[in-house]
Amino acid sequence: MSYFLKSKRLDIAAGIGNNVVLNTKEAEHLGIHPGDKVSLKYGKSKIVYANVDTSSRIVKSGEIGLFEKVWKRREVKNGDVATVSLEGRPLSVETLKKKMLGQACNYKEFYALIKDISDGKFSQIETTYYAASGFVAPYTDDELYYVAKAMAETGEKFNLRKKVVDKHSVGGLAGNRSTPIITSIIASLGLIMPKTSSRAITSPAGTADAMEVLCKVSFNLEDIKKIIKKTNACLVWGGGLRMAPADDKIIKVSKPLSLESYDKMIVSIMAKKVATGVDYLVIDIPVGKSCKVPTMKLANDIEQKFVSLGKKFKMKVKVVKTPAKEPIGRGIGPALESREVLRVLQQHKFRSLDLENKACMLAGTILELKGYCKKGNGMKIAKEQVKNGEAWKKLNQIIVAQKGQKDINSEEVMKEVFKYEIHAKKSGKITFVDNKNINEVCMNLGAPTDKYSGIHTHVRYGQRIKKDDKLYTMYTSNEERLKLGKMAAENNVIFVIG
Amino acid sequence: MSYFLKSKRLDIAAGIGNNVVLNTKEAEHLGIHPGDKVSLKYGKSKIVYANVDTSSRIVKSGEIGLFEKVWKRREVKNGDVATVSLEGRPLSVETLKKKMLGQACNYKEFYALIKDISDGKFSQIETTYYAASGFVAPYTDDELYYVAKAMAETGEKFNLRKKVVDKHSVGGLAGNRSTPIITSIIASLGLIMPKTSSRAITSPAGTADAMEVLCKVSFNLEDIKKIIKKTNACLVWGGGLRMAPADDKIIKVSKPLSLESYDKMIVSIMAKKVATGVDYLVIDIPVGKSCKVPTMKLANDIEQKFVSLGKKFKMKVKVVKTPAKEPIGRGIGPALESREVLRVLQQHKFRSLDLENKACMLAGTILELKGYCKKGNGMKIAKEQVKNGEAWKKLNQIIVAQKGQKDINSEEVMKEVFKYEIHAKKSGKITFVDNKNINEVCMNLGAPTDKYSGIHTHVRYGQRIKKDDKLYTMYTSNEERLKLGKMAAENNVIFVIG
Repeated sequence: MSYFLKSKRLDIAAGIGNNVVLNTKEAEHLGIHPGDKVSLKYGKSKIVYANVDTSSRIVKSGEIGLFEKVWKRREVKNGDVATVSLEGRPLSVETLKKKMLGQACNYKEFYALIKDISDGKFSQIETTYYAASGFVAPYTDDELYYVAKAMAETGEKFNLRKKVVDKHSVGGLAGNRSTPIITSIIASLGLIMPKTSSRAITSPAGTADAMEVLCKVSFNLEDIKKIIKKTNACLVWGGGLRMAPADDKIIKVSKPLSLESYDKMIVSIMAKKVATGVDYLVIDIPVGKSCKVPTMKLANDIEQKFVSLGKKFKMKVKVVKTPAKEPIGRGIGPALESREVLRVLQQHKFRSLDLENKACMLAGTILELKGYCKKGNGMKIAKEQVKNGEAWKKLNQIIVAQKGQKDINSEEVMKEVFKYEIHAKKSGKITFVDNKNINEVCMNLGAPTDKYSGIHTHVRYGQRIKKDDKLYTMYTSNEERLKLGKMAAENNVIFVIG
Repeated sequence: MSYFLKSKRLDIAAGIGNNVVLNTKEAEHLGIHPGDKVSLKYGKSKIVYANVDTSSRIVKSGEIGLFEKVWKRREVKNGDVATVSLEGRPLSVETLKKKMLGQACNYKEFYALIKDISDGKFSQIETTYYAASGFVAPYTDDELYYVAKAMAETGEKFNLRKKVVDKHSVGGLAGNRSTPIITSIIASLGLIMPKTSSRAITSPAGTADAMEVLCKVSFNLEDIKKIIKKTNACLVWGGGLRMAPADDKIIKVSKPLSLESYDKMIVSIMAKKVATGVDYLVIDIPVGKSCKVPTMKLANDIEQKFVSLGKKFKMKVKVVKTPAKEPIGRGIGPALESREVLRVLQQHKFRSLDLENKACMLAGTILELKGYCKKGNGMKIAKEQVKNGEAWKKLNQIIVAQKGQKDINSEEVMKEVFKYEIHAKKSGKITFVDNKNINEVCMNLGAPTDKYSGIHTHVRYGQRIKKDDKLYTMYTSNEERLKLGKMAAENNVIFVIG
């Protein structure tokens, strides 16, 4: 049975999930309780699933109050009549249970589960269990394929009708903002690289967070296709696109733990690539004690899974594994990282050479994988595009196409609002740079939400330093966050002095 | 830094968790975002942790809006000034990560984690990950001990200064409402059995849900002690007591999955027993294909863990494993089950003999474990207490002490509002009774929230039936739920006819 209720916009914004408010008495009468799930339908638009809160005054009998996320997305007006139904437990919870017990599932089961997540039928708790299931038992290669395929199938797709190349870093290494550089190099050579990136999951900034400092990153599919037509590339946020939308919801519940399972990570990446229609893919895996992938053995396992999955999707995949002892580049945080990118492309005297080299190496690998040049020549070609300014010209073009400021200078990018320097407590040699502690400090400073928060490092791995030398500078736009950052810095030593 | 904000009661009730609403502009200014966690302090009362929503109209700058759960529990008045602080990620999330990766943790780590859950510092998502961690890798015996101890230590305790006996069923078998019968038998013989029960976790009714049909089950510790003094026993809900409060929060996030890990179940049970101060404990494990414990091998593993944990806590534990092919008793659902209990104790002609026998067997086991009688005599003594009416006299006394109606007759208990009969689609013999499908149907009918929902079975395992014979009757107080129940019955066959 369904009920007809008049919509009332509430100006309340919550974190994750959709919320609606029913009148307390009426909800009781209908047998609906706070925490239950209902579906709302408005005419022919897509069904919304939401959690129920109740109130005896804010919402009258015959009304349904909508939190901001619900009315904004569906453009519901006050008074619009919703058809409201109490929703039972989604059937695919049974598949969820099987995964929690470590049992294998088939494509049909995964498709139904991923579709339920994608449609918003799963509660936050249920989605969290799904995210946790990756830790229970490793997914088989077939299962990884099923999930990635289901994620791609339940969302929008690019369909560019051209050969597409792409690069993806598994992340977890601070800084390492090579993507905009690589994309600019590749596109400047006439290849198609439609780069959709996520925002930060377990790091202080994702490529989308860093790009957002320079231009818009949120576009619909049609606009993105125009940007690609104009520039051979794009550097946009993939989350707003409903490409593999289930993945985005899973990412949200992964954030509080700052820990993805490797299987989930592989699936998440491949799902987006399939939806983007990628033909040639280079995967960058930084390997180091405090990285997302700590050992070479694990990196090899992950490589095998990527290549095997690639074959199933008819995608050529090359995995590059690089030992990582410290961040690539010196800036960590959205604006600090976009400054690093511009410094490299504009060949600024303070640019980070490690970032420049890594980006050119990866761009070269793409060129070789695609067959653009002979093996061994890729990096040279890439470097030339940076030196001769063609790569910067291309990024400038992309920034403008994405409604950003033309000819922005690297030194205009960062705004220093509150800052605080951390100094060495003793003399010695830097024997370890703790990447996880960098993340912890930056997130307490407000990254990635606060674009101008993060750290800039002044010392490198292996360097000899004296007591009281500057180690790094913390930045944030918010005084309260600075206090949290200082506390985090006390508890999380970034530079270990031996 | 902390902010001082004036409280404003909002009449909004949400499902799980505490919510507060900040003014949108002010929150931005303070660097606080929807979904962030804050702590609230009112004078000397305990800190409350809550999730942030934002609103530009409902709450003005300088105010903090409180959802019902927050102001009700702390008795906050409009205008009361709260000291509000932005909370970082709890440190014990690191322990959570270790458990998700299957690593062992020590007592200190578990204590901090359990305390954070108990204090409400964990979000719903974080608590769900903890619940999921039991599926990742089995906890060692030491870890189970640490968690149970931490759960008991972070809550209130009974301290009765007398030898205490108890019985616990691991549940998962529909019906099986033996606890009130056993408690009445044991207390009628002068032993102390302070029974605190949970509400349903993965079944249509817990003992607390069934007892609530007959009397109050929610009391504070002092009142419970008075009830025990008067009657040697109690049959109350443990959840309101803050005994092992972390466990209650974990149970809430376990509900949507209807699936506990065995380790979590063992810990949950032992934590409450330690807080209750139990000296002699009988554990009932029904074993069957569609029960919570499906095989005898698994039951043996669980037995070993219970006994080993018992030793660490200096508690004598005896595990009784009984093969289970179908529900014990015919009624499933709160009121339907309390009717079964009264029918046994009042020796009604329609009473379920299987329930009577099982309850007397378990009561006898307690008597023997405690050394009240010789081995082999317990069940006979227990049965006599039922036959001679002493057990009913005791339950009547407990019901009255818990503010229920005196001398209530078994046939007055159930209210039949909406009902619907399910008939056999063919003739044959009942070859399987699907306990999990019973749960599914009952929960769709509204159990355990709707006390008068559930099913009453008309056939038994192994029985020969004809096409169109009545199999079971569904009950619910709500017409919408009846529809969901019918759909569930279509998808979940309870009686398999061979």
